[in-house]
Amino acid sequence: MNDPLRWVRQDIRDIVPYQAKVYPEGVKVDANENPFPWPASYVEKLQQDIAAYSYSRYPDGEAKDLRQALSAYTGREPAEILVSNGSDEAIQLILLTFGGPGLATVISNPTFVMYAMATRYMGGQVIDVPLTEEKGTFRLDVDGLIAAANREESRVIIICNPNNPTGNCFAEEDIVAVLRGTDKIVIVDEAYYEFYGKSMAGRIGEFPNLIVMRTFSKAFALAGLRVGYTMASQALIREIHKVRQPFNVNAFSQRAAATAIEEKAAFLAQVETILAERETLLSQLKRFDWDVFPTDANYIFLRLRGETAESRLALAASIHKGLMDRGVLIRKLGGGPGLDGTLRITVGQPEENRRLLAALEAMSEAATESVSTATAASLSAGAVAADGPRRGWRVGQR
Amino acid sequence: MNDPLRWVRQDIRDIVPYQAKVYPEGVKVDANENPFPWPASYVEKLQQDIAAYSYSRYPDGEAKDLRQALSAYTGREPAEILVSNGSDEAIQLILLTFGGPGLATVISNPTFVMYAMATRYMGGQVIDVPLTEEKGTFRLDVDGLIAAANREESRVIIICNPNNPTGNCFAEEDIVAVLRGTDKIVIVDEAYYEFYGKSMAGRIGEFPNLIVMRTFSKAFALAGLRVGYTMASQALIREIHKVRQPFNVNAFSQRAAATAIEEKAAFLAQVETILAERETLLSQLKRFDWDVFPTDANYIFLRLRGETAESRLALAASIHKGLMDRGVLIRKLGGGPGLDGTLRITVGQPEENRRLLAALEAMSEAATESVSTATAASLSAGAVAADGPRRGWRVGQR
Repeated sequence: MNDPLRWVRQDIRDIVPYQAKVYPEGVKVDANENPFPWPASYVEKLQQDIAAYSYSRYPDGEAKDLRQALSAYTGREPAEILVSNGSDEAIQLILLTFGGPGLATVISNPTFVMYAMATRYMGGQVIDVPLTEEKGTFRLDVDGLIAAANREESRVIIICNPNNPTGNCFAEEDIVAVLRGTDKIVIVDEAYYEFYGKSMAGRIGEFPNLIVMRTFSKAFALAGLRVGYTMASQALIREIHKVRQPFNVNAFSQRAAATAIEEKAAFLAQVETILAERETLLSQLKRFDWDVFPTDANYIFLRLRGETAESRLALAASIHKGLMDRGVLIRKLGGGPGLDGTLRITVGQPEENRRLLAALEAMSEAATESVSTATAASLSAGAVAADGPRRGWRVGQR
Repeated sequence: MNDPLRWVRQDIRDIVPYQAKVYPEGVKVDANENPFPWPASYVEKLQQDIAAYSYSRYPDGEAKDLRQALSAYTGREPAEILVSNGSDEAIQLILLTFGGPGLATVISNPTFVMYAMATRYMGGQVIDVPLTEEKGTFRLDVDGLIAAANREESRVIIICNPNNPTGNCFAEEDIVAVLRGTDKIVIVDEAYYEFYGKSMAGRIGEFPNLIVMRTFSKAFALAGLRVGYTMASQALIREIHKVRQPFNVNAFSQRAAATAIEEKAAFLAQVETILAERETLLSQLKRFDWDVFPTDANYIFLRLRGETAESRLALAASIHKGLMDRGVLIRKLGGGPGLDGTLRITVGQPEENRRLLAALEAMSEAATESVSTATAASLSAGAVAADGPRRGWRVGQR
């Protein structure tokens, strides 16, 4: 009777709480982070800052210094920029401003899961206009997106570019076609901008319904510090500011992000190394028996081959588990739309990529031996593919 | 026509965006922060941490280490604790879990403004059951609170204890009476716990509808780093976790808070100094012509005397401005319910408190001289009060 749980919002009761998994130490290439340590000059600056700055005082709620630094970095005015506690908070603030119960967010799966989660937390609904697969990569269904955007209940369309987890970018003309086809809010999430190099930020003046989001979690190596930023017309940014908590971004993270822009040469040199490593890793990964998709970001999307969704899922799970047993953590994408039997691997440091490839090699050899001697042959994927010899996989046992 | 502002939620359009004010350097006793610098041992530990820890990786979303440290500090189980990006986020998460459009939050003004703001951002409504003023302090209207809590639309009751901005604590039996009188969610915000020493946290097992919030922004001197925590039954905490962003508290702040608990002896020694200073400041402030209210926190609530709300407001504004001109920033509480002509002064470092008192002295002398020679005598408050000679104030001119 006196059970306070009955006051929990009905749609929240059904949510399964997010549970972070605990993994052993090792090669961590599952979360699209910058794998390199912070530059020494950057660490020193932050250490000096700790002693010099009064973190016992409330932060600058307006993040003036950081927005000034971002203005120089992006070419947008400070009044066109809003800083948030990671991009996660930006998504939440935008949905709080424009969405809510009874209203819909339009997304294109497979894409970043947080768009759907945040919509649900706000009591809104998700309209999925799946990506289409063409010529070995993924495209936006432009007509489908425009039709969905123009539905009565739709408020926000989110396009992740380059797209997480598939890794590819979308044609700029496709994004522009969506912006032209609807006056609803169109978010382009450019979390991986520095790895791709092209941006919609320069077209904010042209499209009053365009919002561009970015983050310091990837190229700038601040995933632990939670700093995202949002660019749009001054009028839109002013509205989003209203629902922001007065002190949403802590002072240390504000200053660490501004300092990262000061030190951008060092971080962008890391990006160059990651891009070079990515090409090596990409060609090596193609030696195994799976589909390797093209990428414009710091990670690679893979799909196992198998007759059924179940066999693909089982293969992906087996490889994920095999790598974890060898101290390498990659991302298993589970059973979401378009994700049966897919994996995502972040480009690591050169030594980490070598460890990953060595582990795959060992697993593949074990599978091949097992296939030649054992009874589970029917479950193994082909060891020779059309375009040359490939290393195969066997499900189970390990 | 193509104006994306029309998609902004109607109730958000009317909100005036929060604008942080810029103040000159000087004595800052306006925000109830811990005025002392961080202990040297604490600064050193954080500097070492910057070099040793990988902040380029996503934080522990579950904040396990910090919740473990908080468990030892509070006596509650880790599963009964949720960590948030300041208490501001905790309020938002609780309202997202239990409140929303059409639902109400019950508060007792004057109290912390964020409760009403957060409710409004969520599209909910506020029911105000004002504090009653008795014998020179403030009390909860227990019957009024219970009646309001039991209204159909009410979901959450928030009691700030000690109360910001009035400074006083409430009788524990009054809080317990509210908890017994309703099964709606009752939040007790104990932001100033370390200055007061008593807590409701020990009674969480007894009251399944009780939520206790605290912060590292006050006694623990981490206002800039944004760390709050919420304690309640494991069942309630599990529900609130569901609407939390997976990485709501950044890794540096998590570690800085856990380290602050390690170094708690140093911070609690600062609290002792603040409490001793508070008594000195309190007796000195009573020498001036205003009502000084008793306090159980690290700040003092004052109300100017005047015939009308206008004259009290003008006096308060004049004193706030006069102090600012002398490099001392206090909090002018403006015209909210019960706040006409009131001020709030945080206890500063000893030297800061002396500077504040010297500035008040100078302003009072100027006012007294002006009163004895000028035409504005009718606007000056009495220079001699019933309980002894007092320094007066004059409105205007400066």
